[in-house]
Amino acid sequence: MTTIGEMGEDALIAAFAPRLPVSDAEILGPGDDAAVLAVDGDLVVSSDVLIQDRHFRLEWSTPEDVGWRAAMQNLADIDAMGAVPTALQITLAAPASLDADWVMRFADGLREACEPHGVGVVGGDLSGANEISICVTVMGETHGTEPVTRADALPGQVVAVSGPLGAAAAGYIQLTEGRRIDEETIGLFLRPRPRIGAGLEAALHGATALMDISDGLLRDASRIARLSEVGIDIRAEDVPLHEGARFAAIELQVDPMPWALTGGEDHHMLAVLPRESAVPAGWTVIGATTDAFTGVRVDGEVPDTFGWDHFGG
Amino acid sequence: MTTIGEMGEDALIAAFAPRLPVSDAEILGPGDDAAVLAVDGDLVVSSDVLIQDRHFRLEWSTPEDVGWRAAMQNLADIDAMGAVPTALQITLAAPASLDADWVMRFADGLREACEPHGVGVVGGDLSGANEISICVTVMGETHGTEPVTRADALPGQVVAVSGPLGAAAAGYIQLTEGRRIDEETIGLFLRPRPRIGAGLEAALHGATALMDISDGLLRDASRIARLSEVGIDIRAEDVPLHEGARFAAIELQVDPMPWALTGGEDHHMLAVLPRESAVPAGWTVIGATTDAFTGVRVDGEVPDTFGWDHFGG
Repeated sequence: MTTIGEMGEDALIAAFAPRLPVSDAEILGPGDDAAVLAVDGDLVVSSDVLIQDRHFRLEWSTPEDVGWRAAMQNLADIDAMGAVPTALQITLAAPASLDADWVMRFADGLREACEPHGVGVVGGDLSGANEISICVTVMGETHGTEPVTRADALPGQVVAVSGPLGAAAAGYIQLTEGRRIDEETIGLFLRPRPRIGAGLEAALHGATALMDISDGLLRDASRIARLSEVGIDIRAEDVPLHEGARFAAIELQVDPMPWALTGGEDHHMLAVLPRESAVPAGWTVIGATTDAFTGVRVDGEVPDTFGWDHFGG
Repeated sequence: MTTIGEMGEDALIAAFAPRLPVSDAEILGPGDDAAVLAVDGDLVVSSDVLIQDRHFRLEWSTPEDVGWRAAMQNLADIDAMGAVPTALQITLAAPASLDADWVMRFADGLREACEPHGVGVVGGDLSGANEISICVTVMGETHGTEPVTRADALPGQVVAVSGPLGAAAAGYIQLTEGRRIDEETIGLFLRPRPRIGAGLEAALHGATALMDISDGLLRDASRIARLSEVGIDIRAEDVPLHEGARFAAIELQVDPMPWALTGGEDHHMLAVLPRESAVPAGWTVIGATTDAFTGVRVDGEVPDTFGWDHFGG
């Protein structure tokens, strides 16, 4: 094993860079003071930080998994504006004792997630640190269409999701409890697989509010409710539960609905659309907006819990 | 004292966001899945990561200093392409025990550095971590001019710098040795003050290669030499030494020239320009490019040391 400290920064970059995906929008790639990208329309930009033992665990996730997740949750953020992702900036801070092979395989995961979408890594930074800390900034472009925020939902519209929920939470609980019941949901926890393009699809169907579900359906829906100043009523029986989650819950003898309602990290899209007929094929209507109350209710009731806080447990 | 863990993510963001600078290019600011920015010309983008006790020390730097430095070294990267910075993405990962006031004052430092340039913070992310880790991604625009890379210098051109060197290194050594001789250089180590716009100026004067000096003149010059496939000969007596560094060196009874040659972190611009008459006012010619050798020499000699490695000491 060669550590990144033994390898040194320049050799590490030289080995790492060729494994990174190349952006279709790239005019000048990594290696200078800054990268240069073409932008069609306006620039859409978002960032996430991933910290070892908080956002991923080295004993659960392969380096490829970590790279995949770092990329995919960011691609979802651009899709969640109804925009098209084009490029990533990646910074990696890590202990000098980290196996250089971990960094190479991390790059492979980034590439696997990004390449099908024409998204590339155009730059970044490396540093020593006491724990692994990864920052991803994703950039995308609007192609002249209006971005869809969380703030423009109106009362009397329909609420829909682009995929089945609860898989990531089901995978997480299996890893936590050391019981591998359903490999698909474990895989979806380690490598979320939102359908990139679903957000753009909702935007083209006239979505008035749009976001990806990262912190749980209820918490994220409450953000749309607050910013749009509407109430959102969710019908629990209509929330699509991932089949693997349902199966794992039976084996674990627990109720899977909290996974779908508060689990998060599936990264499927949550949209408000003007009417039932505007909902794209493959999406599921799960409720409606209203002016009868504010915030989020489930079957008319205020839920007990919404999700988690990033500085809390 | 209220810690960020006690305050919680939502309250922290609510208190932090109004202190951040607003970008002139902002179409949609923080608070949604992604921000939206206007871009005139092509997008120029760069990232840096700053880790506690590696890139800053809490006992030396105020929170405002850390915010200033995080912003300024990134603005310099965009200027170093001959482009104009417009916006930052900031991620902050920190222990739950961190004083929330630290985060507020960090935001103030970002604002002080950015506001004079119309640069704003358009988004970011917060997370818990065991050490403070800050990632800055800076975006800028070309306004239709060609970015200046490190790769197009030709033999027989002149090499110039936009400001006096060695101040940051002089400040660092005073803090390390616990001797405060010259407050200006200590201040410049904690808050680098490159003249943002100097890079654009060099670009408009026909610079063939351009970068900011972050890792030391010799190491950074050797990057231009390698990428442009030229030799660079620096005349030591022409390298402008910061007056405060000269003064501190006398008191410390050391030679200040290594600070100017290998110290780094002054973030002034290093440019190759086609001829003496193209050098902008206020810049200092320090040498020439050549095809007689490759790499960097000082007064015709290969130097003993070039600078430092980010995973090394």
